[in-house]
Amino acid sequence: MSTDTGSFPSETSSDALSSVQPVRITVTGAGGQIGYALLFRIASGALFGAATPIHLTLLEIPQGLKAAEGTALELEDCAFPLLRSVTVTDDAAIAFNGVNIALLVGSRPRGPGMERADLLEANGRIFGPQGAAINAGAADDVRVLVVGNPANTNALIAAAHAPDVPQGRFTAMTRLDHNRAVAQLAAHFSVPVDAVAGVTIWGNHSASQYPDVFHATVGGRAVADLVHEQWLTETFIPRVAMRGSEIIAVRGGSSVASAANAAIDHVADWVGPSGNDWTSAGVVSDGSYDVPTGLVCSFPVQCVDGQWRIVPGLTLNEFSKNRIRASVAELVEEREAIRSLGLLPKGGR
Amino acid sequence: MSTDTGSFPSETSSDALSSVQPVRITVTGAGGQIGYALLFRIASGALFGAATPIHLTLLEIPQGLKAAEGTALELEDCAFPLLRSVTVTDDAAIAFNGVNIALLVGSRPRGPGMERADLLEANGRIFGPQGAAINAGAADDVRVLVVGNPANTNALIAAAHAPDVPQGRFTAMTRLDHNRAVAQLAAHFSVPVDAVAGVTIWGNHSASQYPDVFHATVGGRAVADLVHEQWLTETFIPRVAMRGSEIIAVRGGSSVASAANAAIDHVADWVGPSGNDWTSAGVVSDGSYDVPTGLVCSFPVQCVDGQWRIVPGLTLNEFSKNRIRASVAELVEEREAIRSLGLLPKGGR
Repeated sequence: MSTDTGSFPSETSSDALSSVQPVRITVTGAGGQIGYALLFRIASGALFGAATPIHLTLLEIPQGLKAAEGTALELEDCAFPLLRSVTVTDDAAIAFNGVNIALLVGSRPRGPGMERADLLEANGRIFGPQGAAINAGAADDVRVLVVGNPANTNALIAAAHAPDVPQGRFTAMTRLDHNRAVAQLAAHFSVPVDAVAGVTIWGNHSASQYPDVFHATVGGRAVADLVHEQWLTETFIPRVAMRGSEIIAVRGGSSVASAANAAIDHVADWVGPSGNDWTSAGVVSDGSYDVPTGLVCSFPVQCVDGQWRIVPGLTLNEFSKNRIRASVAELVEEREAIRSLGLLPKGGR
Repeated sequence: MSTDTGSFPSETSSDALSSVQPVRITVTGAGGQIGYALLFRIASGALFGAATPIHLTLLEIPQGLKAAEGTALELEDCAFPLLRSVTVTDDAAIAFNGVNIALLVGSRPRGPGMERADLLEANGRIFGPQGAAINAGAADDVRVLVVGNPANTNALIAAAHAPDVPQGRFTAMTRLDHNRAVAQLAAHFSVPVDAVAGVTIWGNHSASQYPDVFHATVGGRAVADLVHEQWLTETFIPRVAMRGSEIIAVRGGSSVASAANAAIDHVADWVGPSGNDWTSAGVVSDGSYDVPTGLVCSFPVQCVDGQWRIVPGLTLNEFSKNRIRASVAELVEEREAIRSLGLLPKGGR
C-alpha cells in the first residue's frame, strides 16, 4: 500500500527554493512516537536548513499505516514551505527508492519473556530486507542512521544486505547517550553544555556502553583531574547508561523527543559543514582500538567532508580498555548470534 | 512547588552566545502532548534562531508536574547549546516572573456533558490568575499566545486581568486553521504552499470560524475566479473548520505536532524581522471590520516592528460579512457569559 497524501509539484514554484536540489528522506516506524517527534523537525528544515526542499516518505508496517497517515495529514497542516511531498507506504522498495537519508527508527522491541535470539531474529527480518531495498534503490549518496534497537546489530544486518553501498554509510545512533553524558558533566560542573568537549560513548548502545571522560574537558580543564573514579563508576557511568529507565520512571513514558533530537544532531552533523566537533556514533569498525573489523561500534568520531572519521591515536587507560572490551564482547556475541541464525548473507561482509 | 532541573550558568560560557540577551519563555500545560511537541523545537532555536540563549519555564498543575519533570530531564538530555536553564513549577507567580514569551497551552478541555458556561468558568479560573501573574511579574516586552481552548475568550480573560500590559500583547492562536486553509488550497491547485497568499481566518477558533479566500491568490491568480461557491461552502470551509476531527479519526489522537508548529509560526513571525507575510491571528479588536472593540477575534494580520497590525481596508462581500458576523456573534456570547460569571474584573477593559 502506498498513498501520496500530499502533492505539491515543485515545478510550479517560482521561489528560490526550486534552485536547490531536494532531498529524499525516509523514516521507518513513522507512525510511532519517535517518528512523530522527528518528522516535524525534519520538515521544518532542522537537517538541511531553510533552503533545501524535502520529499518525505513514511514507512510503516500495515498496522501502523493509519497512524502514519494521520501524521502525514498533520504534516500537510503545517504548510511547511520546504515540504514538497509526503508519501506513506508499507513497501520498502517504494520507501527507499531514490532515498538520500534513511532513518531506520522502527524495530521490534523486546517483549515479555523474549530471549535475545528471538529479538535479534525478529529484527533481522526487518533490517535485512530494508538493507536489501536500500541496496537496490537508494540514491548514490544514501546515508543510513539506525535508531531502532538493538541499533548497532540492526545496522550491521542492514549493511550486510547492501553490498553495493559503502559501509561508511551505515551508522547506529549513540548520540543520545553522548548528549546525556555531556549534559551530566555540564550539570555536575555547573557549566553550559558547550563548555564540555571530548566525551566519547564506546561500544554498544546498551547497558554495556562505556561513556568515557578520560579525554574530556570542561572549560578547557581535564575532567579526569576533577573527578574521582568512584564518581565515574558509581554515579556518572550508570546514570548515563541507565538514563532511559530514569526517564521512564519520571515521565511515565520512554525517551522520545530526546531520541528524535539526537537523530537530528547525528544527521545534521553528517550532512552539514565539517566542524571540529567530536561526538559519538556507531560506525563500521576499521579495526581501530582493537575493535574487530566490521562490527558497528560506537567510537569517538568527527565528520569531515560528509564522512565520519574515527578519532585516531587516543591513549586508553586500563579502566577504559576493560570497559570497551566488555561492550565490544557483547557486540561480537550479537554478531555470532545473527550469523548462526542465518541473518548474515553468505559471502557478505 | 518549583524545581530547577537544570542549571547551566551562562557567566561561565566563553562563547558568542553570552553576548546575546537571553529570553525567558514559559509554557503552560507543559507536561501535556502539545507542550512536549513544542518545547524541544523552542529549545533548538526555532523561535529566536541559533544565537539567543533561552531560559525555559514549564508550568503545570500539581497532577502534571511529574510529566513536566520528565520532559525537563529529556530537555537536559538534548544538550541544547541555547538552553540555559529549565524550571518546573506549579506556581504562576514563579512561572511568569520576568517572562518574555508566554505560551498558554494548558486549559480545561470540555468534558462529557459539560455545558459551555461550565467550560468558560473552569478556564476563567485558569486564565484570570495567569493574566494577573503576567501583569505582576512579566518583562516589559512580554508577548502572550493563548493556545488552550476556548483560545479567544481565554485570551480575553487573561488580558482583562493584566491592565498594565498593552492589549496588543495578548493573542489567541488561529494559525493552525490558517495553515490548514493554505495547505488545502495548495493541495486543491497542486501548487506549493508558498504559492498561496492572502488567506484569512476570521472570528473564533471554533467550528464557526470563517476561512476566507476572497482575497487569496494562488500563483498570483485570484482564488475566487478559480472556485465555485459550492466548493467553498461544502468542501473547503467545513474541511478547514472540522480538520481537527478528521485528524482524530485518522490518527487516533488530536492535532498535537501541527498545533505546536502553528504556535512556533505565530511567535516566530511576531518576534522575527518584519515581513510581507499576511497571516491570521486572534488579536484584540480595535473595531476594525465592525468587530466589537475589545473582543479577541481572528483577523488578517501582518507583523510590523514586532506588533501585529490588522490588514486594513479589505472589501468584504455579503457572503464573507455573514460568515464573520456569525462567528463574531459567538465571541460576543462568550464574553457575555464570562462577564455574567464574574470572570471579567470590574472596571477592566
